[in-house]
Amino acid sequence: MASSGGPEIDQLIQLLARLPGLGPRSARRAVLQLIKKKEQLMIPLSAALDRAVEAVRTCEVCGNVDTRSPCAICSDPRRGETGILVVVEDVADLWALERAGVGAVRYHVLGGVLSPLDGIGPEELLLDELIARAPEFQEVVLAVNATVEGQTTAHYITDRLGPSGIKITRLAHGVPVGGELDYLDEGTLSQALKARTAL
Amino acid sequence: MASSGGPEIDQLIQLLARLPGLGPRSARRAVLQLIKKKEQLMIPLSAALDRAVEAVRTCEVCGNVDTRSPCAICSDPRRGETGILVVVEDVADLWALERAGVGAVRYHVLGGVLSPLDGIGPEELLLDELIARAPEFQEVVLAVNATVEGQTTAHYITDRLGPSGIKITRLAHGVPVGGELDYLDEGTLSQALKARTAL
Repeated sequence: MASSGGPEIDQLIQLLARLPGLGPRSARRAVLQLIKKKEQLMIPLSAALDRAVEAVRTCEVCGNVDTRSPCAICSDPRRGETGILVVVEDVADLWALERAGVGAVRYHVLGGVLSPLDGIGPEELLLDELIARAPEFQEVVLAVNATVEGQTTAHYITDRLGPSGIKITRLAHGVPVGGELDYLDEGTLSQALKARTAL
Repeated sequence: MASSGGPEIDQLIQLLARLPGLGPRSARRAVLQLIKKKEQLMIPLSAALDRAVEAVRTCEVCGNVDTRSPCAICSDPRRGETGILVVVEDVADLWALERAGVGAVRYHVLGGVLSPLDGIGPEELLLDELIARAPEFQEVVLAVNATVEGQTTAHYITDRLGPSGIKITRLAHGVPVGGELDYLDEGTLSQALKARTAL
């Protein structure tokens, strides 16, 4: 039994508990908070969800989520001028790069990485769409995660785009800004030393 | 900038970030999960919230939250037979005791504890309602948290109920000092209720 407040409350707890970062206990606390702040939180959240269900869609060009398709980034003509296409695994990565203010670039969201063990092959990702789209750009930046699957996916894209002659780059490896050397793994340190830059 | 997906998505993130246990980063992850699982998660959650906004109310007898008032616990005649009224600070505590299976008791939710520093006096809590209701029961169990404020509240209730001659008990020690009921395991809670002592 999740709560003692009837099936409506139980169902709300069960659904909230499926969100990342929330378990059954925190979902119960969240629901009590919602009930306590009905006017300031529960009703606005309910309305915001209704609007999002109605409005949010996936951009047919790049795989981003927005309230329109093509999305605001794909529709912005200034973004096309730099000729840079940044390939990311997930919308969360796109948001992270935008928060970092990386500049006027376009994106392509793969929707995951190649992972044969999990049954994720090229057909499960927006890879054909990327290959079809890439020739419009001068440079393709592979901003995939520095994991085995991410690097496998980067190799696959490099192979497929090789014949086209487009410039392909990847994010630099190195010491995170504000990071301490003592806490970094050897791989990162080794890469950072290899890619040292003149002051 | 919270996301790159338009005002509808930003607003959803901001509202979710106000839930306990979620910050801006986990709210962004939650929203992306909702968008990814639109059919299985976002639409059901939206509908569940709509139903909860409509249905959930505070029980006029005990202060519990339920879809009806009097709530299911107050309406259950078997709960009255034991003549035990368990006084809790919060609905979360009531749920925790119910999960522990403490038996056929009734509850009274104070809605907080006395805390003069925070400006919470007897009028801010459902204390008059408790005093008025208590004579219907043979025993009042003070299941308030083992904090200074909780114990202050217990003393206040004992003083007010003293002249009525009702048996007043409190949860047994076993509740860690400074701990909160909602975080305790069911076994400890159940033992603590069984070993309640007269004040």
